[in-house]
Amino acid sequence: MGSEKDQFPEVQGGGSLILAWQIKAKNVLVVGGGEVAAGRILNCLNADAAVTVICPSSGLNPEVAHRVSTGQVDHIDRKFQPSDLDPDKNVNMVLTAIDDPEASTQIWTLCKERRIAANIADVPPECDFYFGSVHRDGPLQIMVSTNGKGPRLAASIRKQIAATLPKNAGAAVDKVGRLRGMLRKIEPGPEAVSNRMGWMIKVSDAYSWEAFCDLTEEDMENLLAFYSSGEVPSLDLLKSMRQDFSAESVFDGSFGFSVGC
Amino acid sequence: MGSEKDQFPEVQGGGSLILAWQIKAKNVLVVGGGEVAAGRILNCLNADAAVTVICPSSGLNPEVAHRVSTGQVDHIDRKFQPSDLDPDKNVNMVLTAIDDPEASTQIWTLCKERRIAANIADVPPECDFYFGSVHRDGPLQIMVSTNGKGPRLAASIRKQIAATLPKNAGAAVDKVGRLRGMLRKIEPGPEAVSNRMGWMIKVSDAYSWEAFCDLTEEDMENLLAFYSSGEVPSLDLLKSMRQDFSAESVFDGSFGFSVGC
Repeated sequence: MGSEKDQFPEVQGGGSLILAWQIKAKNVLVVGGGEVAAGRILNCLNADAAVTVICPSSGLNPEVAHRVSTGQVDHIDRKFQPSDLDPDKNVNMVLTAIDDPEASTQIWTLCKERRIAANIADVPPECDFYFGSVHRDGPLQIMVSTNGKGPRLAASIRKQIAATLPKNAGAAVDKVGRLRGMLRKIEPGPEAVSNRMGWMIKVSDAYSWEAFCDLTEEDMENLLAFYSSGEVPSLDLLKSMRQDFSAESVFDGSFGFSVGC
Repeated sequence: MGSEKDQFPEVQGGGSLILAWQIKAKNVLVVGGGEVAAGRILNCLNADAAVTVICPSSGLNPEVAHRVSTGQVDHIDRKFQPSDLDPDKNVNMVLTAIDDPEASTQIWTLCKERRIAANIADVPPECDFYFGSVHRDGPLQIMVSTNGKGPRLAASIRKQIAATLPKNAGAAVDKVGRLRGMLRKIEPGPEAVSNRMGWMIKVSDAYSWEAFCDLTEEDMENLLAFYSSGEVPSLDLLKSMRQDFSAESVFDGSFGFSVGC
C-alpha cells in the first residue's frame, strides 16, 4: 500500500477548482454599476458574454456608463427585481456588486432556487465561485488566485508572471493552435487523432515554447512537411529552410531569449 | 468620446471567464475511471469536493482504484444511469471522461435540463467550462489556459511560471492572509474595513511580495504594532526589531531573491 500511495499525486485540500467558464453569447446579469461591477463586466465581455447591467442610471460609474452608451452591454435602469431571474430570461450567471446586504442575500437565494451560478461580491459564503487576477495575452489566460488570502498580492504575483513571459507569448499560443489546425487538414478524422497528437507532442518537446514565438508562416509550412515521416526537424534545420535564410536569421532573438530564461 | 474610450480598458473578446469554483463538501459526479477521470478527481479533491465516481470496477485505472480503496471518493460500480442526476442526489457538478459519445451527449443533455454544471471531456460544445493547467502551492493557485489552442503548451508555460516563483510563495500568501486575520482581531467590524484595507495596501506596496516569504511570526506582531499609527515600517527597520537581531539577519536570502528577480 505504501508504494501505491507514493506513486499517485497526494491530495492537497483547501484549494478551489479553477475553471475556464464558457459564457460566449450567454446571458450574464450584473447587478450594480460601481467600480467592482465595471471589473466584472470587463471580465465577461472579454469572454464574449451577453451582459445586462441592472442599476439606476444615477449609480453607474463612468466606465459602466461608457459600456452602456457604446452598446457593449444592455442596461436596465432600475434596481433588481425577482422577475429578472424568470426562466424566460435564460440567465446563465449572476454577479452582484451592490452595497445592500439584504438585497444581495435575496438575489443569492433566488439564484440557488433557480440553479443559477452566482457571485455576491464581498460575501464569500454567497458565492459559487470567486474571481482572481487574470493576465491576458490573446488566447493565453493566466489566473492567479490566493483563495481569498490576499487579492492585492494576487495582482502583484500576476504582474510579476506577466513580466517574465515573452512579449509575444500569446502569439506563440496562437501559432501552436494554428499548427494543430493545419495538421487536422493534412490528416483529418478522429482515427488520426493519436498520430496527430503524437507528432504534436514531439514538436512540443523539440522546441522551447518561446521558440514558437518566432516561427513564421513559412516555418510552419516547412515543419508540416515532416509530419508524414513522423520526424521533427531541429529548430536550426527548420530555420535554415527559409527562402531568405542567412546565418543571422538562425541566431536571432529567440535564442537570446531561451538563454535568458 | 475618444478620450473617454482611451480611459477605459479595451475589451479583448475570445477568452474564457476564469473562475475559482467553490466545491467544498459539494457533490461532484465523475463518470468514467480512466486517466482523464483520475486527473479530474484529483482537481476536485484538492478543492475539498465530495466526489462520487461512476464506473464499472473493471474500468478503474490504478490511481482511481487507489482513491476508491482508500475512501477518498465514493464509488458506484456500474455505468451511469439517468437517476444518478435525480434532484435528491443534489449533484453540483458532473465531469465525464468515457469513450462513449452517445452516453456522453445523453449526460450533457440531462445536466442542461437539470441545470447542473458539466464538462464532457474532449467535446468542447458540451462543456460549461474547460480545465487548464494549474500550479498549486498552499493557498496559491495559478492556472494557465490556452483556450483550447494547446493543452501541452499550457502545461509547459505553467511549469516555467512555477520555476520563476520563489519556493515558498505559498507560505508568503498564507502569511498575508494571517496578517489580514490578525488585523481583523485588532480592529474588528465592517466599519473598520477601509482602515484595515488602506493599511494592508500600504503594507503590500512597501514590501516586495517575496519579502513576505521571510516574515517571522515576531515580524508580523511587530508590524501590527504600527497599525494604529497608520504607518508601515521599512523592511530593514522591521527586521532590526527582532529580539535576535544581528546584521546578518537583515541581509539574508530575501534580499538576494529580490535582486535575483
